[in-house]
Amino acid sequence: MVNGAIGVFFDWRTGSKAMNIAFLGLGEMGSGMARNLLKNGHMVTVWNRSPRRAEPLHALGARIATNPAGAAKGAEIAITMLADDVAVESVTLGENGLTAGLAKGAAHVSTSTISVGLSERLTAAHAERGQEFVSATVFGRPDQAQAGKLFVAVAGSPDTVERVRPALDAIGQRSFVIGEVPAQANLLKLAGNFLITCVIESLAEAYALTAKGGIDTRKVHELLTETLFAAPVYRTYGELILAGKFSPAGFKMALGQKDNRLVQLAAEKLKVPLPFAAIVRDRFLAALAHGDEELDWSAIAKRAAEDAGLTQI
Amino acid sequence: MVNGAIGVFFDWRTGSKAMNIAFLGLGEMGSGMARNLLKNGHMVTVWNRSPRRAEPLHALGARIATNPAGAAKGAEIAITMLADDVAVESVTLGENGLTAGLAKGAAHVSTSTISVGLSERLTAAHAERGQEFVSATVFGRPDQAQAGKLFVAVAGSPDTVERVRPALDAIGQRSFVIGEVPAQANLLKLAGNFLITCVIESLAEAYALTAKGGIDTRKVHELLTETLFAAPVYRTYGELILAGKFSPAGFKMALGQKDNRLVQLAAEKLKVPLPFAAIVRDRFLAALAHGDEELDWSAIAKRAAEDAGLTQI
Amino acid sequence: MVNGAIGVFFDWRTGSKAMNIAFLGLGEMGSGMARNLLKNGHMVTVWNRSPRRAEPLHALGARIATNPAGAAKGAEIAITMLADDVAVESVTLGENGLTAGLAKGAAHVSTSTISVGLSERLTAAHAERGQEFVSATVFGRPDQAQAGKLFVAVAGSPDTVERVRPALDAIGQRSFVIGEVPAQANLLKLAGNFLITCVIESLAEAYALTAKGGIDTRKVHELLTETLFAAPVYRTYGELILAGKFSPAGFKMALGQKDNRLVQLAAEKLKVPLPFAAIVRDRFLAALAHGDEELDWSAIAKRAAEDAGLTQI
Amino acid sequence: MVNGAIGVFFDWRTGSKAMNIAFLGLGEMGSGMARNLLKNGHMVTVWNRSPRRAEPLHALGARIATNPAGAAKGAEIAITMLADDVAVESVTLGENGLTAGLAKGAAHVSTSTISVGLSERLTAAHAERGQEFVSATVFGRPDQAQAGKLFVAVAGSPDTVERVRPALDAIGQRSFVIGEVPAQANLLKLAGNFLITCVIESLAEAYALTAKGGIDTRKVHELLTETLFAAPVYRTYGELILAGKFSPAGFKMALGQKDNRLVQLAAEKLKVPLPFAAIVRDRFLAALAHGDEELDWSAIAKRAAEDAGLTQI
Repeated sequence: MVNGAIGVFFDWRTGSKAMNIAFLGLGEMGSGMARNLLKNGHMVTVWNRSPRRAEPLHALGARIATNPAGAAKGAEIAITMLADDVAVESVTLGENGLTAGLAKGAAHVSTSTISVGLSERLTAAHAERGQEFVSATVFGRPDQAQAGKLFVAVAGSPDTVERVRPALDAIGQRSFVIGEVPAQANLLKLAGNFLITCVIESLAEAYALTAKGGIDTRKVHELLTETLFAAPVYRTYGELILAGKFSPAGFKMALGQKDNRLVQLAAEKLKVPLPFAAIVRDRFLAALAHGDEELDWSAIAKRAAEDAGLTQI
Repeated sequence: MVNGAIGVFFDWRTGSKAMNIAFLGLGEMGSGMARNLLKNGHMVTVWNRSPRRAEPLHALGARIATNPAGAAKGAEIAITMLADDVAVESVTLGENGLTAGLAKGAAHVSTSTISVGLSERLTAAHAERGQEFVSATVFGRPDQAQAGKLFVAVAGSPDTVERVRPALDAIGQRSFVIGEVPAQANLLKLAGNFLITCVIESLAEAYALTAKGGIDTRKVHELLTETLFAAPVYRTYGELILAGKFSPAGFKMALGQKDNRLVQLAAEKLKVPLPFAAIVRDRFLAALAHGDEELDWSAIAKRAAEDAGLTQI
Repeated sequence: MVNGAIGVFFDWRTGSKAMNIAFLGLGEMGSGMARNLLKNGHMVTVWNRSPRRAEPLHALGARIATNPAGAAKGAEIAITMLADDVAVESVTLGENGLTAGLAKGAAHVSTSTISVGLSERLTAAHAERGQEFVSATVFGRPDQAQAGKLFVAVAGSPDTVERVRPALDAIGQRSFVIGEVPAQANLLKLAGNFLITCVIESLAEAYALTAKGGIDTRKVHELLTETLFAAPVYRTYGELILAGKFSPAGFKMALGQKDNRLVQLAAEKLKVPLPFAAIVRDRFLAALAHGDEELDWSAIAKRAAEDAGLTQI
Repeated sequence: MVNGAIGVFFDWRTGSKAMNIAFLGLGEMGSGMARNLLKNGHMVTVWNRSPRRAEPLHALGARIATNPAGAAKGAEIAITMLADDVAVESVTLGENGLTAGLAKGAAHVSTSTISVGLSERLTAAHAERGQEFVSATVFGRPDQAQAGKLFVAVAGSPDTVERVRPALDAIGQRSFVIGEVPAQANLLKLAGNFLITCVIESLAEAYALTAKGGIDTRKVHELLTETLFAAPVYRTYGELILAGKFSPAGFKMALGQKDNRLVQLAAEKLKVPLPFAAIVRDRFLAALAHGDEELDWSAIAKRAAEDAGLTQI
C-alpha cells in the first residue's frame, strides 16, 4: 500500500499479485513486454513519446499517460524500455520525468541497454528521492518479447528485486539475479551483446573462408549448428548471414554500434582490453560508412565478405 | 585373412557389414576410435609409433602391425588419426608407409586435422596408385571419441564415402557429407576449430570485463549457457576458464596453435582476411612465450586476464 | 584598437607587432610557451589554477590574473594550454571564464589537445558573443616548447589566423595553416598523436622480435634511425624504449590514452575504421591496468615485451 | 682468370681491392647493384634465369655465365639477389647451383629478402662444403640500387664480413654490421619491411580520417613530413598514397605479402606476438582478393579508404 491510492490485487489467473505498473517506451520490444504485463493481470499505465503506439495497448486495457511523471503517479513499479542513454535520461530526469511522479518507495525498473555510467547516475538520483532503482536487462529479439520468452538479468537491492519479480516473471521466461548493484546488470547486458557480435563476426569469417574454398555454406551451417554450436544464437545469425536478408532489421546496425561503443566505454573505465570488440567496432564503422545503418546488425558480415572479394557468403 | 582376399562379413550384432580396417595412430583420440570399431564388429589391425599403446586394443581383439604398410595390407579401409602434417605425411608416403601396403581400390580415410595442402597432395598420391582417399575430420574431445559420439565431416568421391560409412558410423554419432573434394573436410575442420577459439577468446574477454565490474563470473556463465549460448562449446570452455584448470589438457596449446597456423595458411591461399584468427594467433604465441605449451588450449584465456591486470577470471 | 584600452606596440627587438596576450595554463608546455611570448616582446597576463606556477613568469614581466575572465580583459588574444576537455570547457565557459572577460573581436587561440566536438562547441560559443576562435594545436615535447621550437597546426577564419600569427611565431618554429574550420586543427593534432603511437607500437614489436632473435637492439635502432627512419620521432621514442626509462614522463600515459580515446571518438563520428588505433587502445588499457599511468606513454612498449615473455627489449 | 687462381687486384680508381665477383639475379634491384660493382672496378660474372637481362651488363664489361655453378667458378664472392626462398634455394643448392661451383673459402653473400629458416639452412649447407655464407640484406628501392645508395645490414663471421666489405661498399652508401649469425640480417630486414608496412598503414588511416574530416590531405602530408615525420619513408609512401599512383610498382604487392608472411613465420618461431603485422596481413590478403597483386605494396592504403567509404584519400 505504497502511498495510499496504489491498489494491490490478487490475480486469480496466475496466482501472483497484480501490481500497478507504469510502462514507458513502446517500441518493438516494449510493446510486447507491456502486452505480457496486461496478460498477466497487472494494471498497466503506458506512455510513449509518439502516442499512436499506445493505442493497441489501450484496446487491451492499458491506461494512457501524457507524460512520464503522469504514468509513474500511483505506480508501484515504473518500467522503462527506451532506445538509448539520451532517451532514458530525459524520460527519467527531464521535465515531467519519472522521478517527478514516482512515489517514495516505488521502484524504477530499467530494462534498456544503457551505459554503466548512466545506470550509476540513475541509482544515485532515485536514492536521493527515496525511490528504488533496479536494472533488469533483457536478452531476446522482438518475437521473444511478444511471447514473454525473454531472459532477464536483474541487479539491485535484494528486497526490491524480490518485490518487482512478478513483473519480471510476466515479461521473461526466466530471471537471473546477478548482483546487488544495478549497474552490474547493465554491464552484463553489454557483455552479452558483445558475445553476440563475436558470434556474428566469427561466423562471417568462417563462412567467407569455406565459401571461397568451394564448400556449400549451407552444409557448413547445418554441421555447426547441429553439433558443437547448437545454440539459438548461432542458428539465428547463421541463417541471417547465409540468407543475406538484413532487412527488416530485428536489431538495427546503429543500435548495435551504440552497444559496442558502450561496452568499450565500460571496458575503458575498468581498464580491460577487448581485442575482439575492437575488430567488431571497425566492422560497424565500415558498415555505417557504406550506408547500412538501417540493416540488421548481422549485416557487418557483408564486410567480411567484401574483404575476401565476395559479394555473398 | 589380412593378407589374403579382402574379406567382407555381415555383423549380426549391428546389422552392418563388418570390414577389415587398419587403424594408425593410437593417441587419446585414436584409441577411443579404434575401440569403437572393434565394438562394432569390425576386424581391426592397429599400428602406433610407440607399440605400447597398441596393447589394450590387442586385448580387445585387434591385431598389431609393425609398420603402416603391414597394417594396410589386406585392409579395405585404412584410417589415420595422427598429430600433424609431418606424421601423416611420413606414415602415408614414407618408408613402409600406407601407400606401400594398401591394395588398389582400398581407401585411406584421414581423420587428422591436417593442412589443406597436404590433403591435396595425399589425394593425388593415392590416385596415382589407384587407391581412394577420403577426408573424414572429427569434432569432439577424447571422452567423446571414447563414447563413439564424435561428429564427422566427410568429403570425397560419393562412392567411396558410401563405402566407408560403416566405419564412420562406428566412431561418430553422426556424419555430414560436405563435398566431393577431400580437402574440403579439412578446411571445414580448420574453420570449426577456428570458431572454437573464437568462443574461448570471446568468453575470456567477457569474463575479464564482468569480473572487473564486480560480478560473480559463475553467475555470468550460468546466465549465458542457459540462454542464448546454450551450446556444448560454451559450457565446456566456460567451465574450464572459470575453473582455471588447464591441466591435464584435453587439447594441447601447441596443437591449438598449429591449427590456428593451418587455418591462416588456408586463408592466405584463398585470400580471405580473418581478423579474429589474427587476434587468437597472438594469444597462442603469448601463451607459448610464457611456457604454457602443455596446458589446454583454453588457457589462452589467461592472457586476456593478464592484460586486464587479473590473475584469475 | 579593439575595445579602446588594448594597446598595440611595435617591438623594436623582433620587428613584429607587440600584442596584449592572455595566457591560461602554465604546465610544462604552457610555461615554456608563455616565456617565449614575453621574450618576443609581447605583453602577457597569465593565469593558472595553481598560482604558484605563475611566479617565475611574473619575474620575467608577466602580469598575474586571478581568474580567466580577468586575464582576458583587455587582451587581443587569449591563449589556452590546458590538460583536457574538462579543463578547457570550464576555463572558457565556466564561472569567471574566458568568454566573460574577452572583448568582442578579440580571439581565443586554443592550443590544447581537445576533442573535435568541444572545438565545435567553442567555435559556436565564441561566435555567439562576437568573439573569434582559432585552434592552433602544437607538436613537440616540453623542451621544444621551452625553446620556441614547436610546430603549430592552425585552423580558423583567415583574417583571424593572420591576426594571431605573431603570437604563433613566438611559440613555434613554423606554423601550418590547414583549414578554415577550427576543429580541423584538432582533428589533425589527434591524427598526429595517433601516428606517434603507431611509431611507438611498431618499434616495440620490431625490437621485441629482433631482441628475441638474438640481435643487439641498439644496432637495430642505429640502423633504422640512420637510414629510412631518420626522423625525430623514431629517434626519440626508440631511445626511450631501449633505455626502458619511462619516468619522469615527457607525456603521461593517461594523457596518451585520452588522445587515443579522442581520435577514436572522432573516427566514430566520421565513420572511419582505424585498426591500428584499436591495437594501441588495448595497449593503453593494459598499461593502465598494470598501474603505469604516471609513466611516459611510450611505456606501452612494455606490453609488447611482456607478450613476448621479455622483461626488457 | 675466372677459373684459375682467385685473382686480387688493386683498383687505382677507388683505392680498394678489385675482386672477382659472381652476381646472380638481374631484376630491377640486381641490375643496379651489379652495375655498381662494375663501376667500382670489380670483375663481375653475371647470371640470370632469363639471359636477356644480362646483355646490358655485358656491354659494361661483365662476363656472362650459363648457370650459377659456372658463375661461381673462380669467384671470391658470389652475390645473390633473387625474388624469394624458392629461387634462392634452387640457385644455391639445385642442379648446377652455386654450391657446386664455389671454391672452398669463397663466400656466398645473400642479399635477397628470404626467410630466417632458409638462411639457417644455407649457413649449414655452405659450412659443410667449407664455403662461407654471409647475409647482407639491403634497404632501398630500385632507384637507390641504381645509384649505389642502398643501406646494407650484414651478418656473418667477422673475418668474412671484412673480406666482402669492398663489394658491399660498392652497392650501398653504408653497411651496418649487426651480428655474427647470418640469419640475424634476414630477421632485421624482415623487421625493417614490417616497419615500412606500419608506416603505410598508419598513414592510410590518418589520411582517411583527415580526408573525411574535410582537411586537404596534401596539407596533412606537408605538415607531417616537414616536422616529426621528416623521414624518407614517410615522404615516399605518403606521396604514393595521396597520388593514388600504385603502378608501375616499385615493390609489388605480392612481394610485400610474402615478406609479411616471412616476418610472421619468424615471429611464430620466436614466439613474439605482432599485432600490427596481423592487421597488415589482412590488408594484403584483401588487396590480393581484389586483384591488386601487380600494384605497389602501398596500395594496401586503398583498403583503409574503402573501409571508410572513400574511393580516394
